[in-house]
Amino acid sequence: MLEIKGIAVSNGIAIANAYCLVEPDLTFDKLTITDIEAEKLRFKEIVSKTKIELEAIREAAEKKFGHDKAEIFSAHLLVLQDPEMLNAIDVQLSEGVNAEFALQETTTMFIELFESMDNEYMQERAADIRDVAKRLLANLLGIELPDYSRLSKDVIIVADDLTPSMTAQLDKTHVKGFVTNIGGRTSHSAILARTMEIPAVVGTKIATTDIPHGAKIILDGTKGTVLLDANEEIIAEYLLAQEEQAAESAMFQQFVTAESISADGFHVELAGNIGKPEDVDNILANGGDGIGLFRTEFLYMDRQELPSEEEQYIAYKTVLEKMGQKPTVVRTLDIGGDKELPYLKLEPEMNPFLGHRAIRLCLEQQDIFRTQLRALLRASVYGNLKIMFPMIATLDEFRKAKALLEEEKEKLLREGIEVSREIEIGMMVEIPSAALIADLFAKEADFLSIGTNDLIQYTLAADRMNEKVAYLYQPFHPAILRLVKMVIDAGHANGKWVGMCGEMAGDEIAIPILLALGLDEFSMSASSILRARAQISDLSKLELTQHLDKILSLSTSLEVEQYMTKLLNTNN
Amino acid sequence: MLEIKGIAVSNGIAIANAYCLVEPDLTFDKLTITDIEAEKLRFKEIVSKTKIELEAIREAAEKKFGHDKAEIFSAHLLVLQDPEMLNAIDVQLSEGVNAEFALQETTTMFIELFESMDNEYMQERAADIRDVAKRLLANLLGIELPDYSRLSKDVIIVADDLTPSMTAQLDKTHVKGFVTNIGGRTSHSAILARTMEIPAVVGTKIATTDIPHGAKIILDGTKGTVLLDANEEIIAEYLLAQEEQAAESAMFQQFVTAESISADGFHVELAGNIGKPEDVDNILANGGDGIGLFRTEFLYMDRQELPSEEEQYIAYKTVLEKMGQKPTVVRTLDIGGDKELPYLKLEPEMNPFLGHRAIRLCLEQQDIFRTQLRALLRASVYGNLKIMFPMIATLDEFRKAKALLEEEKEKLLREGIEVSREIEIGMMVEIPSAALIADLFAKEADFLSIGTNDLIQYTLAADRMNEKVAYLYQPFHPAILRLVKMVIDAGHANGKWVGMCGEMAGDEIAIPILLALGLDEFSMSASSILRARAQISDLSKLELTQHLDKILSLSTSLEVEQYMTKLLNTNN
Repeated sequence: MLEIKGIAVSNGIAIANAYCLVEPDLTFDKLTITDIEAEKLRFKEIVSKTKIELEAIREAAEKKFGHDKAEIFSAHLLVLQDPEMLNAIDVQLSEGVNAEFALQETTTMFIELFESMDNEYMQERAADIRDVAKRLLANLLGIELPDYSRLSKDVIIVADDLTPSMTAQLDKTHVKGFVTNIGGRTSHSAILARTMEIPAVVGTKIATTDIPHGAKIILDGTKGTVLLDANEEIIAEYLLAQEEQAAESAMFQQFVTAESISADGFHVELAGNIGKPEDVDNILANGGDGIGLFRTEFLYMDRQELPSEEEQYIAYKTVLEKMGQKPTVVRTLDIGGDKELPYLKLEPEMNPFLGHRAIRLCLEQQDIFRTQLRALLRASVYGNLKIMFPMIATLDEFRKAKALLEEEKEKLLREGIEVSREIEIGMMVEIPSAALIADLFAKEADFLSIGTNDLIQYTLAADRMNEKVAYLYQPFHPAILRLVKMVIDAGHANGKWVGMCGEMAGDEIAIPILLALGLDEFSMSASSILRARAQISDLSKLELTQHLDKILSLSTSLEVEQYMTKLLNTNN
Repeated sequence: MLEIKGIAVSNGIAIANAYCLVEPDLTFDKLTITDIEAEKLRFKEIVSKTKIELEAIREAAEKKFGHDKAEIFSAHLLVLQDPEMLNAIDVQLSEGVNAEFALQETTTMFIELFESMDNEYMQERAADIRDVAKRLLANLLGIELPDYSRLSKDVIIVADDLTPSMTAQLDKTHVKGFVTNIGGRTSHSAILARTMEIPAVVGTKIATTDIPHGAKIILDGTKGTVLLDANEEIIAEYLLAQEEQAAESAMFQQFVTAESISADGFHVELAGNIGKPEDVDNILANGGDGIGLFRTEFLYMDRQELPSEEEQYIAYKTVLEKMGQKPTVVRTLDIGGDKELPYLKLEPEMNPFLGHRAIRLCLEQQDIFRTQLRALLRASVYGNLKIMFPMIATLDEFRKAKALLEEEKEKLLREGIEVSREIEIGMMVEIPSAALIADLFAKEADFLSIGTNDLIQYTLAADRMNEKVAYLYQPFHPAILRLVKMVIDAGHANGKWVGMCGEMAGDEIAIPILLALGLDEFSMSASSILRARAQISDLSKLELTQHLDKILSLSTSLEVEQYMTKLLNTNN
C-alpha cells in the first residue's frame, strides 16, 4: 500500500477510481504512405467517429448545462464538416503522407490564418479548429482524451491543479473527491471542494505522477492522505469511517433550524460563503443565519466580457430574494492575485498577491466598479444587503470607495430608482495595516469582516498557494490571534459588529477562541455550518474567556493548537 | 521643455547626456549577392574591425576590473579567430548570400550544436559565440552596440531597469545618474544609486521611449523629475542648485568626526548599509558609527557557483578588520524574492516576495547556511561582529537558526579554531508577524533590527517594485508607526537595543519620529549618514517626545507627513 500525503482541505472520505486530468501525449511521426486510398478511408472513419462523439457530448451538455453552454459543440461539429478544410486535408493525403500529418499541417494553417485576423469571431473560430483538430488527432492515434464533462461512474479527480475553467466543465455528479499536486487550504480547488461538500487533498506534489488513471484509491480529506493499493481490511476500515461520518452528518441535521447559541446562552451568527447565486440553496439547506461573504468575482469569470449592470442586478436580486430578511454581505469585485479576467488584459505582475488587485483596481477602473455598485444598489430593496470592500489598506481607499458608492446612490435616486436606506457599508480586514488601525476604521465603517486567508498570508509573508511555505500558513500564530483580538475589540469599542469570513471561522480549534474573543459573525463553507452550530451549542463562552489570557500568552502556533486540543478533549 | 515624473530615490541633480540602454534592432533581410568576392572582403574587414574593438574592450576591462573579468573578452577573441567557423561562413558566402545571413546561419548552427551538449564548458562557448555574433552583426549593419563598460564622457543612464548583472559591467566613473521605467524606492537600481551617491529617478514608465539617446537631460533625484529640452535659463537654475548642494555636502563634512548626538544630548548610532567589502571605505569616509546591515547576498551573485567558506571568510574578515571595534551587523543570506541565484536552480514562484526565500531557504538548504555561518564565526575574532537572520516570521525559525549557529560554533571550537565569545545574535524584524510578537522575540534575541522596506510592503500588501501600487509604499502609515513603536518598546522592555536598516532610517521626516520613539541605531546609505547626523544634532529628543501622542493619533500617512513637515519647518 502506498500513502501519499498532502494538505487536508475538505473533510470526509472518498473511495473510488482515480480520474487523471493530464494532457495526453499527441506527438507522432510523419510517415510516407503507399496505400493512399486506405489512409483516406481511415481518416474518413475517424471523422465519422468524432462526429458521433461530439454529438453525444453536445446532447449531454445541453441536458446538464443548458443550450448556451452546449452551443460550443455545435460550432465544433460545423468545423468537422467544413468542406474547405476536409478538401485541403484530402489534397495533403493524396501526396502520400499519414493522416496525422495531413491533419496537423492543414489545421495549423487554418488556425494561423484565422488568428492573424484582428477579429474576435475569427479568433474564436481558430480556437474551435484547435479543439476539433486535437480530438481528431487523438482518435487517429487511438488515445482517449480526458472528457471530464461526461463521467459514467464515480471518480476521484487527480490533477496538477483545478482551474476555474476546468471546474466549469466538470461533471460534478460523479466527482467524489479531488487530489491535486499543488495548492493550499485556500486555493480554488480547496474552496470548490468545500462548496461541493466532497473530500479533497491538495499540495501532494506527486499525485499525477504516482496515481495511475483508473486505480482504486482512498482519499481521506480529514487526514490529508491518499491510499493506493489498499487491502480489503483497510478498505473495510474506511468504509466504516465513511458510515460514521454519514451518521454524524445525519445527527447534525437537528441543528438546521436551531439557533446559533452557546451552551451559556450567547448568540452568534453562523453565515455561509458563496460564489454564485445558486450556492444560496446550499447555505439555506444547512441552516445558515445569513451570507457572510458573496464573492462576486465569480460573476466575472469564465466569460468573454464584463457582466452588464442588468446581469449583475439579476444575480444580486436572486440572492437577496432567496435570503429574505437574513443578512447578505456582498464583497465588491476582488480580481487580480490568483483570480484573473483575461478580457481585462491586465499586465502580468511579479507578485500578483501584492499587486494591483481588488479595491486598488476598482478605484482606478471606476467604470467597472460603478457598474457593480449600481447593480447592488438597485438590488438592495429586495433583501437585507450589506456591502464590503476587499483589500482595504488605508483610510483613503475606504473613504474613496464609500464616496463612489454614495455618488451612484445619489444618481439612482435622482433617476427615480428605489434604493434601500439601510445598507450597511463595511470592509474586509485582510491586510495587516487595516487590522493594525482597525480602531480608526471602526469609526467610519458599519462593520468589519476579517478575511483570514489573506490576513495570514500577508502577516507571515507567505504565499498561501505555495507549498514550499505552507508551514507558515499559521492561523494560530500569536500575531494572528493578537490582530484578530485587536479588530474585534476595535469594532466593539465603536459599537460595530465584527465578522470573519476566512477559513479560520469554520475551524474547530479556532471557533472556541473566536467565541471567547467575542466574534459576532462566523462565515464559512455551507458544509461547516451545522458542525459549527453543534460545536458552539456545547461551548461555554464565559468558561472559555477564562482561558483567553493563557491562550494569548503562548509563543507559537503549535503551543496554541496543543493547548486548545487538550482543552477541547477535557471538555468532551 | 518636457518634464518626465518618476519616483525620487536618490537625492541630487545631474546634468548630462542620456545614455539609453536598449537592445538595438539587428534584423536584416536575406539578399542575393552577385559580387561574391566584394561581400567576402566586406566581411573580412568587419572581422578585423571587431577584433580591434574587442582588444580595446579587453584592455579597458583588465585595467578596471582585473584579469579575471577581462578573460571573457579573450574568449570572444578566440571565437572571432576560430578557423572552422570562419570557413563555414566562407562556404555560405560562396553561395551568393549576404554576410549578415551567412553569419547568422553559421553561428546559429554552432550555438545550437554547443547548447545541445550537456557540458557546462560547451554551454559557455555557445554564449561566447552568441555575444561575438551579435557584435559582428551590429558592425555589419553599421549599428553601434551599447557598450556601457567603456564610456568616454559623463552620462545619465536611461534604462527599463538596471539588473545586477548590467550594473556589474557598468563603467561607473562616467555615470552621473540613472533614470528607469520601472522600480520603486527600494529596487536594486535605487539602492545602487544611493550607494554610488548619484541622483536617480525610477518608475517613470516612459523614460526609454521618450528620452532620445544622447539628449541633454536634467535629472532631479530629489524631486523625482527628468527635464528634456530645457532652455538656458532652466539649466542655469539647476547648475546653481547643484552648486548649493555641493556646498551643503561640504558643510556636512564637519560632521564626519562628530558624535551622533541630539541637541539635548541623547546619543544614537548612525551606521551604514553595505553590500560588498569595498563599500566599507565609503561608510568610514562618511563617519559611520558602524555597519548596521551587511547584505551578504551580493557575495553570492554574478557568479557561477556558491562562494566557498574560505572566500566568504576573507570577505567578512576584511570588513571586520576595516571596521575595527565599530559594530558590524551581518545579515545572513537573503536570497529569493527579487534576488535570484541562477546556479541554485530554484523553482520559479508565483509570488517570490511571499516565497521560499532568505531564512526559509537557509533552514532547508542547510549546507549553504552552515558554510556561511562557519565563515562568519571564523572571521568573528577580527572585529565586533553581530549576526542577524532575515525574514524571521516565527519563533521556531529563530530558534532553529540560532541552534545551527551554535552547532557550527561548537564544531569550530572542537576543531581548535578560535571564535569570538561576544557575538550578538539578532534578527531582522521585517515581517508583520515578527513585529507583532516582538515582545516574545526580544526575550531570545540580543537585538532587533527593523527592516522597513519589507515590513512596509508586507504590512500594506503592496509589492514595493510594482509602480501600480507604489502609492501604498507608505512609511508613515499609522500601522507602520505603531509596529515600529511596538518593536522599539519590546526591545527596551527586555533590555535589548533596536535598530532600523530600511530606507526609512535615513529619511528626514522619519528621523525625528524615530528619535522620539527611542530608536537606538539608524542604518542607512553612506550618503545619508552626514545629513542625518547634522539633522539630529539640531533636534531635541525630549521636545519631539511631546509630539509623539499627536503623531501616533493621526489617521493617514499624508497627515503624518504634513504634521512633520510643519513641525520641522517651525523648528528651523
